[in-house]
Amino acid sequence: MRIAVIGVGLIGGSIALAARERVGAEIVGHDPDPEAIAIACDRGVLDRAAASLAGALEGADVAVIAAPVGRLAELAPRVLAAAPVGCVVTDVGSTKRQIAGLLDDPRFIGGHPLAGAETAGVVHARSDLFDGATWYLTPAQHTDGILYERLHRLIGALGAHPVAIEPDAHDAVMAAVSHLPHILANVLVAEAAAVLTSQGERLPATGPSFRDATRVAGANSAIWTDIYLANREALLARIDAVSARLAEVRTLLAAGDGVEIGAWNDRAGADRRALVDAQLAGGALTELRVPVPNRPGVVAGLTLELSRAGVNLADLALYPAPDMSEGVVALWVTGAEAADRTEATLRALDFTVYRP
Amino acid sequence: MRIAVIGVGLIGGSIALAARERVGAEIVGHDPDPEAIAIACDRGVLDRAAASLAGALEGADVAVIAAPVGRLAELAPRVLAAAPVGCVVTDVGSTKRQIAGLLDDPRFIGGHPLAGAETAGVVHARSDLFDGATWYLTPAQHTDGILYERLHRLIGALGAHPVAIEPDAHDAVMAAVSHLPHILANVLVAEAAAVLTSQGERLPATGPSFRDATRVAGANSAIWTDIYLANREALLARIDAVSARLAEVRTLLAAGDGVEIGAWNDRAGADRRALVDAQLAGGALTELRVPVPNRPGVVAGLTLELSRAGVNLADLALYPAPDMSEGVVALWVTGAEAADRTEATLRALDFTVYRP
Repeated sequence: MRIAVIGVGLIGGSIALAARERVGAEIVGHDPDPEAIAIACDRGVLDRAAASLAGALEGADVAVIAAPVGRLAELAPRVLAAAPVGCVVTDVGSTKRQIAGLLDDPRFIGGHPLAGAETAGVVHARSDLFDGATWYLTPAQHTDGILYERLHRLIGALGAHPVAIEPDAHDAVMAAVSHLPHILANVLVAEAAAVLTSQGERLPATGPSFRDATRVAGANSAIWTDIYLANREALLARIDAVSARLAEVRTLLAAGDGVEIGAWNDRAGADRRALVDAQLAGGALTELRVPVPNRPGVVAGLTLELSRAGVNLADLALYPAPDMSEGVVALWVTGAEAADRTEATLRALDFTVYRP
Repeated sequence: MRIAVIGVGLIGGSIALAARERVGAEIVGHDPDPEAIAIACDRGVLDRAAASLAGALEGADVAVIAAPVGRLAELAPRVLAAAPVGCVVTDVGSTKRQIAGLLDDPRFIGGHPLAGAETAGVVHARSDLFDGATWYLTPAQHTDGILYERLHRLIGALGAHPVAIEPDAHDAVMAAVSHLPHILANVLVAEAAAVLTSQGERLPATGPSFRDATRVAGANSAIWTDIYLANREALLARIDAVSARLAEVRTLLAAGDGVEIGAWNDRAGADRRALVDAQLAGGALTELRVPVPNRPGVVAGLTLELSRAGVNLADLALYPAPDMSEGVVALWVTGAEAADRTEATLRALDFTVYRP
């Protein structure tokens, strides 16, 4: 199988590495940035580089456009024009509606692997980047079935789980669980900064919960501006919906209706448990909280003892006191049995354990 | 010094324990719940319990009302009526404007320790709960100076940092950095649940960033309903401000103005760094990210090695891949030197380290 990788960055490079290692594919890469190509060749990411799109696509069975979202509208038609008749063409963009609406070629299937936002550049490419990741695909009525099967199998072989979805549904879901949280985090820090400034506060007024709520604020502007714009319609709908929800809460608050506010808050708790549970493989997460002195070795010792007890932590967060003198470690483990074992192990070590 | 603790829960009990241990104070407790009193006596939290408010306040130098926010308006005037002439009376509520507006007694000074939300009940009371915590006080024009000094010194002796603030400023700051984030988290999970349901999704669509952004969604309804209502005016102002900010982003998005969106996103990043940096004792935090296989022992080993190298972690978070096969550990350390040492230690162990 010959695969053309158009855009050799973190995602394109990782697809290339995984496909070489796991499928034995021949990878031809093309990238406008000569440095990316040099690094890719150096690291053995590509079998060879092509100076032109046409050169990269010659004889390709699969073409992956791993370019920024903002470049897809211009690039995808050119790739389709140069790709062979029997070549399946896909992309890896974070939004799918725009590109799907632009193309009606039976060879094109939109794609979006949920992987790899931590770093950028082919220098960080890894063959295991997609292991266990959901990889959305947006086949359409006109999609060629044989080409869809080829792409689906390839993605499975790269270690990911291909999941077919309508472009509209994809973008609505991503708007709600990813793009909107980024927008709200930005709004929240802007508002907090304005209030603290106006109140002349330079106090330790923000705590771990504020830090968590705003962790994604101001994420890479180049990437996120493209995503916001490409998913504009779904995001506008989510912003309108959130504004309407805020107006509802405002009404409850202004009326001082404690019963309704409590019920609203309870529903949010139930929604969150349902969402977070649904998201996790291998059963529901249990959260355990352990107060600890915040000195070198405490978290290490605690996690090491849990390892010895065979407990694997799905997630872990340390919430320090303002002066860092102590803190609470929150641990998430999968399944009731693991939670009980974790609690017993920690109690045997004289830790106090809460289940919030 | 005799201290009356009215309401013997987590906060009241911890004040009692700290004051007994560190100031040698005599603690008289009063609580409508006989079980709380029984546990408190059992654990040595109180010198004695009083069956009535008057009994608890007899001869008291300090009275601390550690009752839920929703009960303060009714309780505080009764405490002031029963308290001796020379007794300073304070509370520990999360909002300050309402109670300050209600009372003009020179003996009353509103208070709010930023500590102890993880658990509830006197069974979890600890003498070190306030170590390093900010403890807001709201003295007024009519406040008795000698009583203010007494309370200020006591709070310092309990291990906390007393900080004087206007009630309005306190509630505005808390609305922005604590209450509003809770509201937005609730709104976010409600919106995501609605979208995922409408799209028929039961997919692993939410990731660690969604989990972080909504960690406080649906927090204890009894406590939070009181807080929302008591800080209603400041919260309404913040909701209005956030709605206006959302409307601004909406306009930029609808206009497709990438330059302005990028600038808006950049400002959010700068605001967040300023807020999170200002919040932390001992200099700016540096974040380091380390990809790791997600198996028992990896996080333990990594943190243990850092402990051996003398690195103390201010915060730590593990972001697992969807199938838990691998993850990225985010570490926060205080100061540039510690960051360099952390990076060198991890690189020597063949970990890859990024600074995002």
